[in-house]
Amino acid sequence: MTHKTAILGASGYTGAELVRLIATHPGLEIAALSADRKAGMEMSEVYPHLRHMDLPVLKRIEELDFSEIDICFCALPHATSQAVISTLPASVKVVDLSADFRLRNLDVYEKWYGKPHSAPELQKEAVYGLTEFYREEIRGARLVAGTGCNAAAGQFSLIPAIKAGVIDLDEIIIDMKVGVSGAGRSLKENLLQAELGENWYAYGMGGKHRHLGEFDQEFSKAAGRPVEVQFTPTLVPASRGILAASYVRGDAVEIHAALQAAYADEPFICVLPFGQVPATKHVRATNFVHIGVVQERKAGRATIYTVLDNLTKGSSGQAVQNANLMLGHEETEGLMLSPVYP
Amino acid sequence: MTHKTAILGASGYTGAELVRLIATHPGLEIAALSADRKAGMEMSEVYPHLRHMDLPVLKRIEELDFSEIDICFCALPHATSQAVISTLPASVKVVDLSADFRLRNLDVYEKWYGKPHSAPELQKEAVYGLTEFYREEIRGARLVAGTGCNAAAGQFSLIPAIKAGVIDLDEIIIDMKVGVSGAGRSLKENLLQAELGENWYAYGMGGKHRHLGEFDQEFSKAAGRPVEVQFTPTLVPASRGILAASYVRGDAVEIHAALQAAYADEPFICVLPFGQVPATKHVRATNFVHIGVVQERKAGRATIYTVLDNLTKGSSGQAVQNANLMLGHEETEGLMLSPVYP
Amino acid sequence: MTHKTAILGASGYTGAELVRLIATHPGLEIAALSADRKAGMEMSEVYPHLRHMDLPVLKRIEELDFSEIDICFCALPHATSQAVISTLPASVKVVDLSADFRLRNLDVYEKWYGKPHSAPELQKEAVYGLTEFYREEIRGARLVAGTGCNAAAGQFSLIPAIKAGVIDLDEIIIDMKVGVSGAGRSLKENLLQAELGENWYAYGMGGKHRHLGEFDQEFSKAAGRPVEVQFTPTLVPASRGILAASYVRGDAVEIHAALQAAYADEPFICVLPFGQVPATKHVRATNFVHIGVVQERKAGRATIYTVLDNLTKGSSGQAVQNANLMLGHEETEGLMLSPVYP
Amino acid sequence: MTHKTAILGASGYTGAELVRLIATHPGLEIAALSADRKAGMEMSEVYPHLRHMDLPVLKRIEELDFSEIDICFCALPHATSQAVISTLPASVKVVDLSADFRLRNLDVYEKWYGKPHSAPELQKEAVYGLTEFYREEIRGARLVAGTGCNAAAGQFSLIPAIKAGVIDLDEIIIDMKVGVSGAGRSLKENLLQAELGENWYAYGMGGKHRHLGEFDQEFSKAAGRPVEVQFTPTLVPASRGILAASYVRGDAVEIHAALQAAYADEPFICVLPFGQVPATKHVRATNFVHIGVVQERKAGRATIYTVLDNLTKGSSGQAVQNANLMLGHEETEGLMLSPVYP
Repeated sequence: MTHKTAILGASGYTGAELVRLIATHPGLEIAALSADRKAGMEMSEVYPHLRHMDLPVLKRIEELDFSEIDICFCALPHATSQAVISTLPASVKVVDLSADFRLRNLDVYEKWYGKPHSAPELQKEAVYGLTEFYREEIRGARLVAGTGCNAAAGQFSLIPAIKAGVIDLDEIIIDMKVGVSGAGRSLKENLLQAELGENWYAYGMGGKHRHLGEFDQEFSKAAGRPVEVQFTPTLVPASRGILAASYVRGDAVEIHAALQAAYADEPFICVLPFGQVPATKHVRATNFVHIGVVQERKAGRATIYTVLDNLTKGSSGQAVQNANLMLGHEETEGLMLSPVYP
Repeated sequence: MTHKTAILGASGYTGAELVRLIATHPGLEIAALSADRKAGMEMSEVYPHLRHMDLPVLKRIEELDFSEIDICFCALPHATSQAVISTLPASVKVVDLSADFRLRNLDVYEKWYGKPHSAPELQKEAVYGLTEFYREEIRGARLVAGTGCNAAAGQFSLIPAIKAGVIDLDEIIIDMKVGVSGAGRSLKENLLQAELGENWYAYGMGGKHRHLGEFDQEFSKAAGRPVEVQFTPTLVPASRGILAASYVRGDAVEIHAALQAAYADEPFICVLPFGQVPATKHVRATNFVHIGVVQERKAGRATIYTVLDNLTKGSSGQAVQNANLMLGHEETEGLMLSPVYP
Repeated sequence: MTHKTAILGASGYTGAELVRLIATHPGLEIAALSADRKAGMEMSEVYPHLRHMDLPVLKRIEELDFSEIDICFCALPHATSQAVISTLPASVKVVDLSADFRLRNLDVYEKWYGKPHSAPELQKEAVYGLTEFYREEIRGARLVAGTGCNAAAGQFSLIPAIKAGVIDLDEIIIDMKVGVSGAGRSLKENLLQAELGENWYAYGMGGKHRHLGEFDQEFSKAAGRPVEVQFTPTLVPASRGILAASYVRGDAVEIHAALQAAYADEPFICVLPFGQVPATKHVRATNFVHIGVVQERKAGRATIYTVLDNLTKGSSGQAVQNANLMLGHEETEGLMLSPVYP
Repeated sequence: MTHKTAILGASGYTGAELVRLIATHPGLEIAALSADRKAGMEMSEVYPHLRHMDLPVLKRIEELDFSEIDICFCALPHATSQAVISTLPASVKVVDLSADFRLRNLDVYEKWYGKPHSAPELQKEAVYGLTEFYREEIRGARLVAGTGCNAAAGQFSLIPAIKAGVIDLDEIIIDMKVGVSGAGRSLKENLLQAELGENWYAYGMGGKHRHLGEFDQEFSKAAGRPVEVQFTPTLVPASRGILAASYVRGDAVEIHAALQAAYADEPFICVLPFGQVPATKHVRATNFVHIGVVQERKAGRATIYTVLDNLTKGSSGQAVQNANLMLGHEETEGLMLSPVYP
């Protein structure tokens, strides 16, 4: 059975990635696309790489007819998402790719995002969208909150080790190296090719990156007590990908075993043989996650290396995976694309 | 129905690209992989990005059992291909990705490739693999010779205009800008990232590029008289893609019309609105071709811009397209993947 | 003797490049910097790579004291330059890096730049800044008009061949491949790293690129009759550099000889041995130009390949070279920096 | 006064970088160049970007006349360096860029480099070449051992904090992100552009990177007791540059103060205002080092970010800085080049 899909905010990178994935998904069909500032344009004008597809014209959200829509992907900016989703008919299932429904505690939301939440009732019902850890809740959800891309990379690295009790919860440092598309298609000087070519540097330092809100919430929940990690991303001169290095105190073999056990049946997550490390390009443009565990020369110190594609598993691929569950499709449907290499 | 496939030379980039494409092809199944120098290894050791697939171990060609193979993709080096294909059972259909069977005239072959052809009988039977121009012959062929990637880009630009008689046959200059993967996974100093980053330059200048042999053959055939174009590629700092600018004498509107007419029903070829030009990233990692025609400021001068991905439409995607025809599948089967963007 | 220098428009890439070059120039000293929208900021805030230098704070042009300034580099936007230079004291020599004073004919200026020139008297006195061809006029000039970066690359390729009468003037096609910094530090979607990475495409097609105005003027002057070339640039995924391929009708050996003769004593221009071609990285961030000439397989057809760095020899390095002449310094002073490689 | 210089191993990247720097150094002159496998070639054949220079032809080391050489830069492979330097006349001062003379303890050398040292007497006399910490010893040395590029980045980050006693010596984790030129001009598959474009991953994990030998030696010496840090580099898709993030336990303000105090008079090292972080491109192709200190959200945790160019301050620029001291030149002579940006 084919389900009708709407994508709100289709002119951003996560919107375009959703279109790419749904294009070859046998159970989903794109029935509506919105992009407020580009309403009236063809998607192929905004993204000529989608020229081969027969897609609905871009409209303003108010112009869309949701009566036959089964599922709506919201790839809207933070805060806008709350307002829009509040207006959608209850019959429409929603996967939100913004940060609006990720944080359970409204005060924490306000702390990280700087203003009160405008849809607290919706937030209560929302399910956190990291499929591998919330599979059953997602299956029955009406509203799923897609995770931050960095938040996903960190959680895949650490949740099983935290749950297994094999790492010191007070000594976790996550150093991520991320491609630039995570910042979206936004006109900022530091995102220019001339600025970023042959350039790399940390940002969001000092515990200021908003994905820390998700880490605090999910790591504490997994641990059963408050956990506050240290986390800083470094922007590298590339378009897509995240490599997370998690420096932990714990036995590397035990950590590896915990990850292997947790992910043994996961179709998208591959734990590498002990001591091997992953490369971002090995999962590029796919929903796959590769994880490696290394023993440091100091006894009791290990490092967990995790790669994923920020736009796919970190965002739009994850969203499709969740939609599959919500709609009763096979979880992997449309997502078994292999990486483009080289 | 699923056909069993062998890929010879699976450790090169075109081999890996074949695996990527066949991975999601509903009518093909990978039954055997060869890689002489890496025989005994898992494909995932050579290409960890294919780790999620259940693939046969790499073997030497002599170790393979062709009795149940329906089609064999030969991604072997030039000259090796001739020798190997000569030994394959007649029951196996073959798509060759090397240059060995592209040139109909044995003297011309020897001129460009420096030694006599060792399988002249096979060469007689081989069909030139540019699907859009040899569709019916390919459908009935046992051996199809995949084209050069640059040769494909140039022919898509020019064949319809030549056939329509709307360009001057003696004034054609093709300037291509190509990504580095066309050179394969070979250890050459100029292919190092440190050498190629922020660097671009022409190569194969002065009429020395071997794809000229294909241009001469196919353009002359299309024209019904000898045609010798001028062609030089420039290597640009990127992995995949070809942009061909063909500078011609002719009426731009007529040329655009000839291309539109020729490609009106082609599933993979898109002629852009008059005056628009394509970008390599818009067809990246796909079987699509985008073509634009521009009127120069001098009357009677036009330029045709064509983009394709050298590893997909220029090589492995083209090979799968041909295999689809040879095996009775839908021509587009497994090939409607959308580009990865950004 | 050290001359005091002002740089107007110091916050753009050509401004920053001027600072870089003057930093190690023994005869020039930076006495004033302007940047209207960033007035009040330190240069190191706008360009942290200049943090090691002791530079004047950025000011608005009206705030600058020109009484002790010997030479002023204007790196301002087109049109702004005219207005500003008109207000400078006559005692200040000026090198303008904008397009405002390049075109001798006011109608031609208006055609290419869309509005009437506001300082026609100044334009009369301006000397075209391609040093190698206007050396003596530049030496005595008060106002020198720096050339377009592409215009420079094309002229170095062709002027000697045109003057020597060894190429057909009606059959010149210039295909350039250019890095992105030529577009400046401007916030445009297509200049984002995520858009430009692994992407290349033509722009300014169909005789619409403004540097054609310079080509028409200078090639016609060199030929003694009207010459209109065909010229299109292709943007490649890199920061700096231009490779110009000039497709011409003529004897390659004669063209090579004409170039060698013309540039025999030039300190910055190197004509490669016959048949060799240059690479952009070989002149990166320097004032050097490398030129190669290739014989095509068709008799009577040749191609001239020229590389230069758009921000150095194509703009700020050229400006310093001209300033050296205007101030009585050695022409090469401060400009013999070697390329950064790799 | 001008000193005559020989560069052994001129065909590698550090050799080419030495030539670039010495080209504009007023007190050094290149009198001899060696490159065994390329003996007989012009340097401009090996590195066409040096075409504008008048350089001696490449020779085998045995062919060189050292009688008039004042200083010899050895940019030879590890182990070869020992053998060659042993044969040089005592009158020649030597800066070695290999790892051969960095480690004081012969057993430690053998542990990291896998074979016994063949020139133990020379090793005794060698001075470790991190100028800022060994300035006086270097001034009087005959043989200076240039440091590892990563080793330099780590030491600039940490030595002042260790000496000041403001960080926990047992909790130091150094995560570096490095460009590919550190691996030299060597033909390895993983260094190909097609492999490294859009790809990043850790290597030398688990305490196996040889620069740990230098860290152990120098950090322990600075601390007055054994210190073993954790260190892993990540290869990023770029040619030049190192960003070191050092995760430490200590008071960020005290650490910042210690660094500021230590480097207050250093011409090449810039400590950024508290809380700011550096970018690799801001020191590209220069001898500068930028260092930032950030307070993490957890009390008592800080991160030190340091950037330098691996080929300049990490290798050849450092070597020239040391040569300046050894020969009585101004320490900064020839090294105040500004970064190329963008």
